[in-house]
Amino acid sequence: MADAAPGSSTTSRVVLLILRVFSFVLLLISLIVLAVNSGTMESDVGTLKIHFNDVYAYRYMLAAIVIGFAYSLMQLAFSVFRLLMANGCLGGDCGVLLDFYGDKVVSYVLATGAAAGFGVTTDLKRVFEIAGLDFGDKFYQMANASASLLFLAFVCTAICSVLSSYALPKKF
Amino acid sequence: MADAAPGSSTTSRVVLLILRVFSFVLLLISLIVLAVNSGTMESDVGTLKIHFNDVYAYRYMLAAIVIGFAYSLMQLAFSVFRLLMANGCLGGDCGVLLDFYGDKVVSYVLATGAAAGFGVTTDLKRVFEIAGLDFGDKFYQMANASASLLFLAFVCTAICSVLSSYALPKKF
Repeated sequence: MADAAPGSSTTSRVVLLILRVFSFVLLLISLIVLAVNSGTMESDVGTLKIHFNDVYAYRYMLAAIVIGFAYSLMQLAFSVFRLLMANGCLGGDCGVLLDFYGDKVVSYVLATGAAAGFGVTTDLKRVFEIAGLDFGDKFYQMANASASLLFLAFVCTAICSVLSSYALPKKF
Repeated sequence: MADAAPGSSTTSRVVLLILRVFSFVLLLISLIVLAVNSGTMESDVGTLKIHFNDVYAYRYMLAAIVIGFAYSLMQLAFSVFRLLMANGCLGGDCGVLLDFYGDKVVSYVLATGAAAGFGVTTDLKRVFEIAGLDFGDKFYQMANASASLLFLAFVCTAICSVLSSYALPKKF
């Protein structure tokens, strides 16, 4: 973005900032929904309880959300800084590369987190039903809600990744 | 890649071609390993059999492999064509955009396929053990092997995606 036309550069910075704010908010809600998710069932041996961290795939989902959240927060700070300082120290090639590789890697992390969450929820519900374990639909619905929010945050980051790719200097 | 220096452009085309060949071979092996994966166990009610398509996450994995395979095949044909024809009709802006968006979307598909596969295998094994279902370790090992190959194919496609991003025309 450093050596681009000022008008379109500022527009793209505003679009990026809006997308990063969206991503940040979505990840925050996703984190809360996942963290409070638990289910209980009454059995012959007493009350059985399941918490999101009993499922490894949800733990990975949590890790993906936290990584995405930290990255969004950092990029949000950078974006505001760049928007205020037209030729700031974060607007050079280093900043462009940070945007490009950061958005790319974090969008993969978010996509895989959502995929792991969706994948395990569907099959876990079926296997638990076969095994006679019924923790209620709310547990799976909240896990899916969290994964959906994570997926939306991934979409925002993937769009950021496309925008930051166009800002790359041509090498070949 | 159309208006780049000829030397580095040819090098990048060769690197892309090698990566696409790797990706194609990895996806082919991953497809075979997943498709033949099944497990059996003896129970009081007779022989129980599980096949990869009984698990929804593995079905998604199969879909991801097939999409990646078809894309690799198409790109392989284009890459050979471009390598032979220095200024062919697939070397213009249209080809660059096809590379960029194609690599980006397919790399996300492959990453999510591998994540869904890894995620479900770990938790499914634990829940099956709790439910007293033992289909043998081979079933999970082969599923993980297929997901690992899919992950390696994703890495190749992600590198292609980085290379094709550098070839994009600058827009802002």
